[in-house]
Amino acid sequence: MIYLSAKDIKKVFSMRDAIEADREALGLYSEGKTDIPLRTNIDITEQKGQSLYMPGYVSGSSPALGEKIVSVYPKNIEKNLPSVPATMIALDATTGIVNAILDGTYLTQLRTGAVQGLATELLSKEDSKKGLLIGTGGQGMSQLEAMLTVRRLDVVFVFDIDKSRSEKFCEKATQLFKDNFETKFESIANIDEILPQVDIITSVTTSKEATFNGDFIKKGVHINGVGAYTPEMHEIPESALIKADHIFLDTNAGVLAEAGDIISPLKESVINKSDIDGELGQLINNEKNGRKNNDEITIFKTVGTAALDVVVADRIVKLAVQKHIGMELK
Amino acid sequence: MIYLSAKDIKKVFSMRDAIEADREALGLYSEGKTDIPLRTNIDITEQKGQSLYMPGYVSGSSPALGEKIVSVYPKNIEKNLPSVPATMIALDATTGIVNAILDGTYLTQLRTGAVQGLATELLSKEDSKKGLLIGTGGQGMSQLEAMLTVRRLDVVFVFDIDKSRSEKFCEKATQLFKDNFETKFESIANIDEILPQVDIITSVTTSKEATFNGDFIKKGVHINGVGAYTPEMHEIPESALIKADHIFLDTNAGVLAEAGDIISPLKESVINKSDIDGELGQLINNEKNGRKNNDEITIFKTVGTAALDVVVADRIVKLAVQKHIGMELK
Repeated sequence: MIYLSAKDIKKVFSMRDAIEADREALGLYSEGKTDIPLRTNIDITEQKGQSLYMPGYVSGSSPALGEKIVSVYPKNIEKNLPSVPATMIALDATTGIVNAILDGTYLTQLRTGAVQGLATELLSKEDSKKGLLIGTGGQGMSQLEAMLTVRRLDVVFVFDIDKSRSEKFCEKATQLFKDNFETKFESIANIDEILPQVDIITSVTTSKEATFNGDFIKKGVHINGVGAYTPEMHEIPESALIKADHIFLDTNAGVLAEAGDIISPLKESVINKSDIDGELGQLINNEKNGRKNNDEITIFKTVGTAALDVVVADRIVKLAVQKHIGMELK
Repeated sequence: MIYLSAKDIKKVFSMRDAIEADREALGLYSEGKTDIPLRTNIDITEQKGQSLYMPGYVSGSSPALGEKIVSVYPKNIEKNLPSVPATMIALDATTGIVNAILDGTYLTQLRTGAVQGLATELLSKEDSKKGLLIGTGGQGMSQLEAMLTVRRLDVVFVFDIDKSRSEKFCEKATQLFKDNFETKFESIANIDEILPQVDIITSVTTSKEATFNGDFIKKGVHINGVGAYTPEMHEIPESALIKADHIFLDTNAGVLAEAGDIISPLKESVINKSDIDGELGQLINNEKNGRKNNDEITIFKTVGTAALDVVVADRIVKLAVQKHIGMELK
C-alpha cells in the first residue's frame, strides 16, 4: 500500500494524463462498463456535517476499483481546516486489496479540470484563441490548466466577484504556467464587455444565478458549466442554452438529478430533453456527433461521477508504483 | 493522517482495551446512538470477487466515524494473497477528515475476539475454569486471548477438524501467552468426551452443522457462536438453544438477518422470539438481566457490526496519536 500526496501525484501525472484517463472513464461509463452504487451519506448532526462515501468499479481491459470519501463540514472553516476534506482509497481491482491512499482534494481538482479539458478539446473550435474563466475558488487553477492544455490560447480573462481574488489568481497563474504556456491572464471586472470576443467560457462557481449574459456570447463559443452541483445552483444562462446547437453532459443520471443548470430549464420547458445531445462518453464512443462548424454553439455540463475518480486514481497509482513514487505503508 | 499496521495496533491497544471499546460500542448501538447505513456491495464479476464498503457513525461524548473496506476474492488464494483483505479508514468525527488507515484484518480479529470476551465476561460463571475453542482459523487466536482475558481458566481444550492444525495452534498459544496466563492448552480429537466438564464454549467456524453435541453440555455453561455469518451456517446445536436460559445477540438486526444459528431454529419453531433476551447492549445498559445463578445456560451469538469497527478504530487511533505510534502520511 502506498500513500500519494498532492506533490507525489503531480510528479507522476500531468493534466494531459488526467484528460486521457477521464476520456477512458466517460467512454466506459457510457458503454455501461461501470458500476457506481448510490452514494452513502451519513449526517453528523452534532457537527452540522456530512460524510459521503462514493465507491465505484470500472471494468474493461484495465479495470479500476476505489472509493472517494468526502466530508462536508462547514464549521471546519472556524478551525482553519478544509470544509470539504477528501481522501481517495484505491483498490487493485484484480485482488480487491487497498493499494493506495491519495490526496482526494487534489484528485478532485485534477479530474474535474480534466473533464472540462476533455469536453473543450472535443467541442470547442480548434482555433479558439480567447478563454474566459469565471470563479477562482479551489477548482479554478486546474480548470485553467485544462483549458491551456487543450487549446493554444492567447489570453484567458479571469473573473471573480472579488476582484482582488481574480488579480491574485492571475499573478499565481502567470508564475505557474509561464514555462509551459504563452497565454496571458487578464483579471476583468466586467464580463459583458469581453464576452463578444471569447471562444471558450468556463464557469466554476456555486452561483444561484447565471454568471454571464447569454445575449452577448459569440457565434462558435464553447461553454463549460462546472461549478453548479445542486438543483438550486445555475451558472449557465437560459439564453445560452436556447442558442446552443449541442448540449453534452458528463453523465445523464448525474446532471439530470443534481444540476440546476439543466434541471430548471427542462422543468420550465426553456429547453426540451431532445435538445440535449447526450453524454460526452457517447461522443467519445462515436455514437453522437459534436460540433459541425465554427459557428455552432456548444455546451458541456459536468457534476462529476465516481467513474472519473476511480479511473484517474488507478492510472496514477499504476504510474507511481512503476516510478517508485509515494510513501510505502508497512 | 497516520498508518497503523497490526504491529502498531498491538503496541497501543490490548485485548482488554478492545473489550472496553466493544462494550461502549454495543451499549451505544442499543441506545440508538449509532448510524450504520446499509453495506454497499460491488460485484467484481470478472474476478468472481466482491468489494464491500461498511461505513458507520457512533455519536455520544466521544463520537467515532469510519469505514471498513473488505473484499472477498476467493481466487486470491491461488496468488498466495489473503482471500478476504480488509482495510479500516478512520475519520475524525469532529472534522470529517480521514485521520488514519488501519490494518483491517487485525482490527477485525481484535474486535471480534473482544466482543466474545465481553459476552463471556458478562454471561459466563465467574468461576469458570475450563474452556473449549472450536475452530483454529484466522479468528481463533484472538478468540482464545479474549477468553483468557476475562476468565482465569485452568485449561482451554482446542478442536479443529484438522488435528494437526489444532496441535500447532496450541503450541503457538503456549508461546504467545506463557508470560501472561497460566492456562494450559490441550488439542483434542473428540469434543463429546470433554463437553461435560466445560464451562465456556466458543465456536468459530463456518460449519453448516452443529459443531458440538448439545446433549453433553454442562449445567451453567456459556456458549459463544462466533463463526457462522450466513443463513446457511449453523454452529450452535438446537438442543443447546432449547436448554438455554438466556440468549443474547450482538445486534438483533444483524443476527436475525444473517445468522443461520438463530434464523433456522426460529423458522422451524425450535425456539421462539420470546426465548431471545435481546441485545448484549441492553444487558450493558441494564435494560435486561443476565445469568442469575451457576446453573443457567447462556448463549451469545455475534455476526459483527460496523459500530464495533468504528469505535475500536477510533480508540486505537486516539491512543496511537497520544503515544506517537504509527507512520505519519505526508
